[in-house]
Amino acid sequence: MSERYRQLSPSEFFYRNREIAGFSNPVRAVYQTIRELVENSLDATEMHGLLPEIKIEVRDEGEEKVTISVEDNGVGISPLEVPNVFGRVFYGSKYVLRQSRGVFGLGVKMAVLYAQMTTGQPVKVRTATRRSKFVYEYQVAINIEKNMPTIKSLAIMKNEDGWHGTRVELSMKGNWIQAKKRVEEYIRRTAIIAPYATIIVDAPDFSFRFERSSTKLPPTPITGKPHPHGVDIELLKKIIEGSKKTTYLFDFLIKNFDGVGPATAKKFFDTFGLNPDLKVKDLKIDEIEDLANKMQVFDDWRRPKHTTLSPLGEELLVKGVKAVLNPSFVTAVSRPPSSYAGHPFIVEVALAYGGSISPMDEPMLLRFANRIPLLYDEGVDVSTKVLGKIDWKTYKIDFPSPLAVVTHVCSTKVPFKGVGKEAVADVPEVESEIESGLRECARRLRTHLSRLERLFEVKRWEITVSKYVDEVSSSLSYVTGVDHGLLQSKLLALIKARVMAGDRNDE
Amino acid sequence: MSERYRQLSPSEFFYRNREIAGFSNPVRAVYQTIRELVENSLDATEMHGLLPEIKIEVRDEGEEKVTISVEDNGVGISPLEVPNVFGRVFYGSKYVLRQSRGVFGLGVKMAVLYAQMTTGQPVKVRTATRRSKFVYEYQVAINIEKNMPTIKSLAIMKNEDGWHGTRVELSMKGNWIQAKKRVEEYIRRTAIIAPYATIIVDAPDFSFRFERSSTKLPPTPITGKPHPHGVDIELLKKIIEGSKKTTYLFDFLIKNFDGVGPATAKKFFDTFGLNPDLKVKDLKIDEIEDLANKMQVFDDWRRPKHTTLSPLGEELLVKGVKAVLNPSFVTAVSRPPSSYAGHPFIVEVALAYGGSISPMDEPMLLRFANRIPLLYDEGVDVSTKVLGKIDWKTYKIDFPSPLAVVTHVCSTKVPFKGVGKEAVADVPEVESEIESGLRECARRLRTHLSRLERLFEVKRWEITVSKYVDEVSSSLSYVTGVDHGLLQSKLLALIKARVMAGDRNDE
Repeated sequence: MSERYRQLSPSEFFYRNREIAGFSNPVRAVYQTIRELVENSLDATEMHGLLPEIKIEVRDEGEEKVTISVEDNGVGISPLEVPNVFGRVFYGSKYVLRQSRGVFGLGVKMAVLYAQMTTGQPVKVRTATRRSKFVYEYQVAINIEKNMPTIKSLAIMKNEDGWHGTRVELSMKGNWIQAKKRVEEYIRRTAIIAPYATIIVDAPDFSFRFERSSTKLPPTPITGKPHPHGVDIELLKKIIEGSKKTTYLFDFLIKNFDGVGPATAKKFFDTFGLNPDLKVKDLKIDEIEDLANKMQVFDDWRRPKHTTLSPLGEELLVKGVKAVLNPSFVTAVSRPPSSYAGHPFIVEVALAYGGSISPMDEPMLLRFANRIPLLYDEGVDVSTKVLGKIDWKTYKIDFPSPLAVVTHVCSTKVPFKGVGKEAVADVPEVESEIESGLRECARRLRTHLSRLERLFEVKRWEITVSKYVDEVSSSLSYVTGVDHGLLQSKLLALIKARVMAGDRNDE
Repeated sequence: MSERYRQLSPSEFFYRNREIAGFSNPVRAVYQTIRELVENSLDATEMHGLLPEIKIEVRDEGEEKVTISVEDNGVGISPLEVPNVFGRVFYGSKYVLRQSRGVFGLGVKMAVLYAQMTTGQPVKVRTATRRSKFVYEYQVAINIEKNMPTIKSLAIMKNEDGWHGTRVELSMKGNWIQAKKRVEEYIRRTAIIAPYATIIVDAPDFSFRFERSSTKLPPTPITGKPHPHGVDIELLKKIIEGSKKTTYLFDFLIKNFDGVGPATAKKFFDTFGLNPDLKVKDLKIDEIEDLANKMQVFDDWRRPKHTTLSPLGEELLVKGVKAVLNPSFVTAVSRPPSSYAGHPFIVEVALAYGGSISPMDEPMLLRFANRIPLLYDEGVDVSTKVLGKIDWKTYKIDFPSPLAVVTHVCSTKVPFKGVGKEAVADVPEVESEIESGLRECARRLRTHLSRLERLFEVKRWEITVSKYVDEVSSSLSYVTGVDHGLLQSKLLALIKARVMAGDRNDE
C-alpha cells in the first residue's frame, strides 16, 4: 500500500485550513473580513501620513449572505499590483522590517477565498493612487490550485474629483446578526488605539460615525536593516550572495546590519579573535555558522533602532481611552524601546478607572498589537499572564472594581501565536516590559486613589465641623458681643483654609 | 512613496514565521522536532498495521547544539519522494479524508528549516520500503526561495537484513536540558494514547524504554469521500471539472459524496424541487452556488462514515492510562461517531482516580487529538472549557483530589487552532460530545466512590460490633450453658453475613 503524494499551493493550503486564519464559520468570517479590510485601510493611510477616514458598509442579503465593503482615503494600490494583492496568498508589500498591521500577506486573500467558496463571487476592488488620472475597478478571483489571480473584469474611469484610496467589496456567507457585537467591539477598540481615525459604519441595526478625537498621527515607521543579534545562517547566506566579491567582513557587517558602526564592529572582531579582513564570498558553511553564532551571542551590539516602530505615545493613548471608555481616571505609560532576538519592540500600557466603566470581578483587559485590537484567545496571551501576577490589593483595588487595563505591543515582529493574530506569545522580554508598564500605571492609580481618600476625609471633616459653626458663633457673639454674621463668616473661612491646605498637601 | 511588492514561497513564509509552527526558541524547537518526527513514525507504522517500535536519540553537541534522530520500523518512504517529503513545504501524502497525525505537510519541513538556519546542516534520511532490495541514504536541504529540495548526497546500499522503516537525523541549535521535561512528558502521554507502541529513548540524563502494554492495534482508517454537508462552491466546481460531460446531477451526488444512496438523493431533489436530470457540466455559477447551499442545509443526509476514523477504543484507553498513571480507579468512554460541518469525529474520555496520581487543586487534564498529546495552550482548548462547566461536588469529588481527565478527539479534520497543533477550537458539536463523555465517566466515578464509602461504613460497623462478640458470647454462654467458642463463631458468622449482604447490595 503505497502513499500518494502531492503538493498544495499556499492558496489551497489555507482554503483547506481557513479556520487557522480565523475563517471558521459565518459569524467569525464576517468579523475577520471586516478586520482585515479595516487594518489594510489603516495601514494605507496612517503609514503614509494621511488621517484615516474609513467607511464600512454591511448589507444583509438574506439566506445567511452578506455583502461587506470597506473604503478608505489611503494611498491606493498600483493598478498593476491589484490582481496579485487580492489574488495570491503570500504576496505583499509588508515583508520588510517595519511596524505595520499587515505582516503575513494572507488576510485579505483569506476573505477573497472565503467569499469565492461560499458565493462564487469575485472581489470587487476600486482604487486610485494619489494624483492618479484614472480610477481602476477590478473583479478578481483566485485560481486556488495555482495560487494565481484571475481577472474577471477591469474598468478604467477618469478620476474626475482627484479621489485616492481603495474600496473593497465582498459577498460571502455570513451571519451579521451574531457577528454584530464582535464587530462593534472591534471598532470601539480600534477607536481607542487609533483616535486619529474617523470610522463610519453603515450596517443593519448599527449605523454609527466614530469621529476622530485627535488629528495628531503617530510617527511614521521607517524600514530598517536586520539586527545582528537576530541573524541566522540562511539570512547571512542570502546577504552574502547579494554582496560584491571584494567585500570584506568588516565592511559587510557595517553596511548590512542595524546599528553596527566601525567601533562596535572592531569590538566584535576583537572579542572573538575573528579576522575582519576575510572576503565574505570566501566564507565556507561552517565559517558562516560560526559567524552567525557569534553574532547572536555578542553582548555589545547597540539596541535595535526603534525608528522602524510607531508607538501611539502616552498622550494619544490617553485621548483614545478617554474618548471610548470615559473613565474618571486614566494614565498611560509608553515604555522605552527594547528588543528580543534582534526585533525591536515598544510596550505601552494604560490604566483606566471609574466613570463609565462598570465594576467587574476582574480587570477588563483590552489588548492591542501593532494597533490591532485582539479580541479572541485572551487565555493564552502574554498580557493575561502578566495580569495574573498582579496583586491588586497592593494598589488599593478591591474587586469588584471599575478597572480597565490596556496593553499595546508594537514591533517589527510581534510574536503572534497564529496567523489569525489573536494572541501574543509570552516572550520573556515582552512580558517583563508589560509588567513594568502595568506596575507603573498601577502605582499612579494608587496615588490617585489615596488622594481621593484624603479628599474625602477632609470633606467629611469640613461637613462635620461646619455643622457647629452656627451654634459656636452664636455663643461667641453672646459672650464677646461681636456680630454673629461676622464670626460665622470668619469661622467658615478658617475651615476653608484648613481644607485647602489639606488638599494641597498631597499635590 | 510607492510600495514594493513581492511573493514569498511557502518555505520563506514559514522560515520567517517559524514560531507559529512551534519553532520559537531552542527549547521549544527540540520538543517540536521530536514531536513531529515521532508522529510521522507512528503514522508510518500503525496506519499500516505495523506495531510501532520507535527509537529516539538525542546527542548534546555542546554550545547549545543538539543532534536528534528518530528511527521507526514503518513502511518507509519511496526513494523518489524523499527529497520532496523533507524539502518542500505543503508537500505530503496526508491531504486526504482520513484520520492521521500529520495533516499540514509542514512539521518535518519546519524542523529541516530550523536545522538549516541554525547549523547550516541538511537533514539525513535513511529509508527502505517493505521488501525493498535497497536502503537509501539522502542528505537534503531546502531551497527556501524556491520551496524546492536540494539533494546534497545520495547513497544506495543493499538491504541485507530486509529492514524497512525510516530514520531521520537533524543537527540544530537546541537546549536539551530545558526541553527534557517537556519531551519526557510528551513521551509519557504518547504511551497513554499509543499503548501498542514501544518507544526507546537514548538522551543525556534520560534513557528509557517504554515497553508496549498491548499488542492490539486500533482499526486502520480508510480514505473517504467528502460529506455533502461540508461542501463549498470551490469543492463542487472541482469535482464537476473532473466529471464526464454526460454525468447527470443525480448520479453525480451518489458517486462523489459520502453516504448518498439513490433514496437519499431522491429525497434531496424532492425537498428542494431541484431537477436531478441536469448535466453537471451545464451548471452555471449561480446554480452551483444554489446547489452548494442546499447541500449544506439539507437535514436528511446520513451521518458521515466513521471508517475514516481510528479511535483508540475504551479497552486500549484504559490500558494506556493504567500503564502510565497507575491509578486505583479508571474508566473510559468512547462516544458514538458524530460530525461537524461534514467532518466525522469521535470523542473519547477517560477518568482516572487515586493510586499514583497526586492530589491537586484541580483535575489534571491530558488532552489528545488524533492520538497526538497536546501540551501547550491548554487555556484555549475546548476540553478546558468543558472542565470549567463541571461541578465536581455533584460527583463526590472535593479538591484537592487525585483526579486525571483524559480527552481524545479524533477526526478527519481536527479543528486545531493553529499549525502548531496545540489546542482544539470550541466547535459546539465537539464540546457537547466531550461534556457527555466526561459526565458519563464522572457518574461512574461517583458510583465507585459511593461504593467505597459504603464498604468503609460496613467495615467500620463490623469492627465496632465485633469488639463485643467475646463479651456477649461469654454472657450468653453463662446464661444458656452453650459452649462459649461455638456462640462466638456463630455470632461472627452472623456479622460476616450482614457485611457480605451490605457489600452485595450496591453491585
